[in-house]
Amino acid sequence: MHYPIPVSIPALKFFHSKAPFILENGGILPELTIAYHTFGRLNDDGSNVIWVCHALTANSDVSDWWAGLFGPGKVFDPERYFIVCANIIGSCYGSTCARSINPETGNAYGQDFPLVSVRDLASAHDLLRQHLGIEQISLCIGGSCGGHQVLEFAAILPEKIKKIALLVCAARESAWAIAIHESQRMALAADPTLWDDADQAGQAGLRAARAIGLLSYRTIDAYRDTQSDDDHRVEHFSAASYQQYQGEKLVRRFYAQCYYHLTRTLDTHQIGRGRGDAAQALQQLAMPAYVFSIDRDLLIPPWEQRFLAENLPNVQFSSLDSKYGHDGFLIETDFLNPELRAFLHA
Amino acid sequence: MHYPIPVSIPALKFFHSKAPFILENGGILPELTIAYHTFGRLNDDGSNVIWVCHALTANSDVSDWWAGLFGPGKVFDPERYFIVCANIIGSCYGSTCARSINPETGNAYGQDFPLVSVRDLASAHDLLRQHLGIEQISLCIGGSCGGHQVLEFAAILPEKIKKIALLVCAARESAWAIAIHESQRMALAADPTLWDDADQAGQAGLRAARAIGLLSYRTIDAYRDTQSDDDHRVEHFSAASYQQYQGEKLVRRFYAQCYYHLTRTLDTHQIGRGRGDAAQALQQLAMPAYVFSIDRDLLIPPWEQRFLAENLPNVQFSSLDSKYGHDGFLIETDFLNPELRAFLHA
Repeated sequence: MHYPIPVSIPALKFFHSKAPFILENGGILPELTIAYHTFGRLNDDGSNVIWVCHALTANSDVSDWWAGLFGPGKVFDPERYFIVCANIIGSCYGSTCARSINPETGNAYGQDFPLVSVRDLASAHDLLRQHLGIEQISLCIGGSCGGHQVLEFAAILPEKIKKIALLVCAARESAWAIAIHESQRMALAADPTLWDDADQAGQAGLRAARAIGLLSYRTIDAYRDTQSDDDHRVEHFSAASYQQYQGEKLVRRFYAQCYYHLTRTLDTHQIGRGRGDAAQALQQLAMPAYVFSIDRDLLIPPWEQRFLAENLPNVQFSSLDSKYGHDGFLIETDFLNPELRAFLHA
Repeated sequence: MHYPIPVSIPALKFFHSKAPFILENGGILPELTIAYHTFGRLNDDGSNVIWVCHALTANSDVSDWWAGLFGPGKVFDPERYFIVCANIIGSCYGSTCARSINPETGNAYGQDFPLVSVRDLASAHDLLRQHLGIEQISLCIGGSCGGHQVLEFAAILPEKIKKIALLVCAARESAWAIAIHESQRMALAADPTLWDDADQAGQAGLRAARAIGLLSYRTIDAYRDTQSDDDHRVEHFSAASYQQYQGEKLVRRFYAQCYYHLTRTLDTHQIGRGRGDAAQALQQLAMPAYVFSIDRDLLIPPWEQRFLAENLPNVQFSSLDSKYGHDGFLIETDFLNPELRAFLHA
């Protein structure tokens, strides 16, 4: 099987399941591969597991993309904890995705990749958990759609997951976020190469989709402070170059087809589906929860986290006014490290 | 000459100039057509002119797109005032644009349409003003990039323009707005038909570009309140349909090539260019100014209007917390009518 991994990642491991994986929406993946990283060692009583869920375009190497939380003395301390991070289905960092070969056809899935829900992401990773012999997770943590996976994982494993940390996330995908994702899909679909049978298909659309997403990850203030031109030019603006640059960066490490399908996965998030409603589903999650909010988050604004805090039975709520906006959960590690350590060790 | 007007507009008039129009950035339009509407009659001493500047995809029929301000007893009262609104160069509602025929080549300008600045928009409309024999403008008013034109018009005609009303606009285009426009251009460019020699070129990209823009014209709250689904569906979301619908609506009335060029025009806005800086340029505008701000404006947020209010010498500042966000300037006419009437008649 071909693993379409645009960048090389050290120490990537693979879990293969030959059993068909039944998806929430009725689709089937005839077999499943989950790429993952582990750091540190599982202790004898299996009580030192931190499970990290990554966001949209990240990968399983949490030591790279969340470096500020990673290392001796940090919350992700591999000398103390067994840290697991798995690549989500649909992502092109090693897990089964739209560019994987469908064993039933011998061709890449492409446009026919089935609709995967956020709940499916968690269910798939639960297979990996079983494979690794993990019976207890001390802390399950994620930001943005990583947080959405944490919620679903906790709903699936209410006894095994001891604590959850939910950063800049929500009980369900909002109409606002869905509108952003649809705009991204419209940009992807404007590129007629999107569904070509090639890893490099749809790159012009992906550049645009990334540029759109970026607007929601940052703040109006951050653009003003870092991308304003000092002179009085009439074209070739810094802010425009920045959008192009960020689009180009993603094209070099991600596949447009995967991006398209993953935004559809994001839209499925609704912790209350089949569980009454979102509030009822949250009330079932009795483990201690840390909820983190960023005041100027333009993608998943603070009221979403306040809803979590109001409905989770055992919650510690924390907020920060970060100039980085939504992306602050990746950057504001000086704030998050002591908060998360205290929460983990309490 | 061919006028690419996607929708029919009653009483549209045309002003043609056969003289080359020299653009701020060095380009030349060999000839110029300006489509415009007038309402009411110019009085004997020419003292009853209201000049309205329209925003990005609007047209010169202000009685249609700003109907809430238009009519007997309203601020735009054609029984009392001579109201002029002209279509901006680059727009496809009758003025010279990318789909017009370049008389030097016999073909539509297309990609070769020159860079037009916001200052050029005002200079071109000043030709129309002279043609109409208008020596005094009682009120020059516009919202969004209409306000940007008002600023430039006032800088060109500081003696002839008696009052200005600046709604949800700024002294210069922000890095944030430029980043949004670049993302839109990336979506437009992802459609390889964009520069085809056809009025219908680039429609898939235009749909996406409009969807992107729409996000900045509305508010997160408005999407939540009007586009959330009550059920627990996993696809076919209201918010997604809404983006598609709005994209389709624009495709039926606007040209992708014009949209592309006009977003570049927006980016040129800097009232301070060649006038020291923005603050110095504003300080030269001595006429009474009404500045209107919408608290939740995601495109041109309140600090931009506060900057105007702090630097214009003779200013009345007003703000509103509108759930409509940036588009509120078109919708909140119950608030604006009495404010603008009082300002006009003071």
